Amino acid sequence: MSEKRTEIGELGEFGLIDRISEPFVNKQSSTKVGIGDDAAVISSGDHFTVVSTDMLIEGVHFDLSYMPLAHLGYKAVAVNVSDIAAMNAIPSQVTVSIGLSNRFSVEAVDMLYEGIRHACEAFGVDLVGGDTTSSPSGLIISVTAVGTVTKDAVTYRYGAQHHDIICVSGDLGGAYVGLQVLEREKQVFMSNPDMQPKLEDYDYVVKRQLKTEARTDIVHELKALDIQPTAMIDVSDGLASDLFHICKQSKVGVRIYEDKLPISTTTYDTAVELNFDPITCVLNGGEDYELLFTISESDADKVKNHHDITMIGFVQNEEDGRLLITKSGTTVNLKAQGWVHF
Amino acid sequence: MSEKRTEIGELGEFGLIDRISEPFVNKQSSTKVGIGDDAAVISSGDHFTVVSTDMLIEGVHFDLSYMPLAHLGYKAVAVNVSDIAAMNAIPSQVTVSIGLSNRFSVEAVDMLYEGIRHACEAFGVDLVGGDTTSSPSGLIISVTAVGTVTKDAVTYRYGAQHHDIICVSGDLGGAYVGLQVLEREKQVFMSNPDMQPKLEDYDYVVKRQLKTEARTDIVHELKALDIQPTAMIDVSDGLASDLFHICKQSKVGVRIYEDKLPISTTTYDTAVELNFDPITCVLNGGEDYELLFTISESDADKVKNHHDITMIGFVQNEEDGRLLITKSGTTVNLKAQGWVHF
Repeated sequence: MSEKRTEIGELGEFGLIDRISEPFVNKQSSTKVGIGDDAAVISSGDHFTVVSTDMLIEGVHFDLSYMPLAHLGYKAVAVNVSDIAAMNAIPSQVTVSIGLSNRFSVEAVDMLYEGIRHACEAFGVDLVGGDTTSSPSGLIISVTAVGTVTKDAVTYRYGAQHHDIICVSGDLGGAYVGLQVLEREKQVFMSNPDMQPKLEDYDYVVKRQLKTEARTDIVHELKALDIQPTAMIDVSDGLASDLFHICKQSKVGVRIYEDKLPISTTTYDTAVELNFDPITCVLNGGEDYELLFTISESDADKVKNHHDITMIGFVQNEEDGRLLITKSGTTVNLKAQGWVHF
Repeated sequence: MSEKRTEIGELGEFGLIDRISEPFVNKQSSTKVGIGDDAAVISSGDHFTVVSTDMLIEGVHFDLSYMPLAHLGYKAVAVNVSDIAAMNAIPSQVTVSIGLSNRFSVEAVDMLYEGIRHACEAFGVDLVGGDTTSSPSGLIISVTAVGTVTKDAVTYRYGAQHHDIICVSGDLGGAYVGLQVLEREKQVFMSNPDMQPKLEDYDYVVKRQLKTEARTDIVHELKALDIQPTAMIDVSDGLASDLFHICKQSKVGVRIYEDKLPISTTTYDTAVELNFDPITCVLNGGEDYELLFTISESDADKVKNHHDITMIGFVQNEEDGRLLITKSGTTVNLKAQGWVHF
């Protein structure tokens, strides 16, 4: 080992990924896109096969004191399926590998796989492989999802162009606010185990955190609406952070409007109750797994009355920056915080 | 959680896999084979895409006190590539996800990925994705490999037939004996850190353990020899255990000959020195990642003089059992021990 020691935190997750991927050169003619998008794209005859993978580690990505195992299994599949959807592709298969400490019984594994099975049914994917092994500490889940997309429909992060319209599915901020509710109830429970958690009023946000849904339905809808998105990503790190990925890879700037950002009433009210700024939850909360995409101006009419797609702003030239227009009309620079795992 | 608690050890790894996979039903027409072979097989137009995944966990699968990080990276890719080769397929892409505790520096990650890169070059695969995250304890590596094979060449575990000849590439037992050498040197080092490890005489077996090679070359050779194997698996758990997988899935018995089993002189001598029975190392050692396959009797002449493929026995009817003919001519029942992770 060399004498120099650089902490991973100094680079950050994206810096580490850049450093890792830099020396690798793709040589297979079938590799269309490697590291750097939501999924890898592999040419398979007349279509593309897309492959995405994610690792979830207990104590880093989930807390089993409030995340039931079945929900965790569901989520592990959903977040990977979401990456496939973010390529405008239809997911078809998943592999699931698990590492288990001896804290986990066979019955616990059954519950985990019950959630995995429900997710496979919900998203129409087959479980086709995996690995099971022991772990010295805690639970580790690694999922790889495979999907297909026709060559002309595949959507990368890099295709957004000046004047395109920025759209997002569903509403945002709920998963983050739900996590705060769960954390608060955990603290209450730990200080007084006789207290029953009061979650009824928070059903929606708690569900957004615990029951992650991947928007494969939006992929089908876009096809039905005859819309080819110019760029797409799923909102995992947070709207701002994920929008920045599109900006960086498409070499564009953006202008989004605070008053257009979709937030549910429950999310808004709960954020206020917890002393969080609702707009910060929307911009930086993450884990909503909605689809964020750009479309050509000429497609605007096709989505303007869509109940589940919101137009939140425009793509502009890179030198014009990444801007948020507040409700009061002030223009501020967007900041991406995202999730910091290191 | 239900009141009953069954320990995972009661089921064992294969029992757990059976239990996990039982409720899953494949629904995608593109899923040709799911759980239960070396890799999943997905139809992609005129060919099959094969997908395999493995998880390696520090303290379970590797010990960094004698496994250099670059070797570990190489091995993590090689074992997955080996699964692709075991389908008679050519690997093309891999994804690599890692979980890292703060014990690991950026320089350590560089070394790990240097090994990954060397493996990608050696096996002709592209690194196309992955995930990087922190881990509360130790290093976790999860690799997924993708490969392709024509529909008529794909080789499962289930195609072996009565009278087929059982073949294996390379030699066996070396990886296990190498592990024992490394374990012994570690104990010596721990009791007296001034002692330098004496590994020169054990180069070959240590290399078999630390520098895992996947036999993609054999896939090319079989094609060049115009041999379509009837069944194939890679030797990861041990010759006996992996042969049993072929027996179970092909519904056949086997008869193998002790005097035909390929073992290198170094492996043999080192096993004797360490008071291990060399044949037990060959039968149950595991981690050699050679290819074990069956071929039609009519193909025997094509391999009989091959320097790197050994015919070790015959496939027989299931009711005739799984037999080892010892050097003295005695017939004994084969026993599979394999690796127990739980």
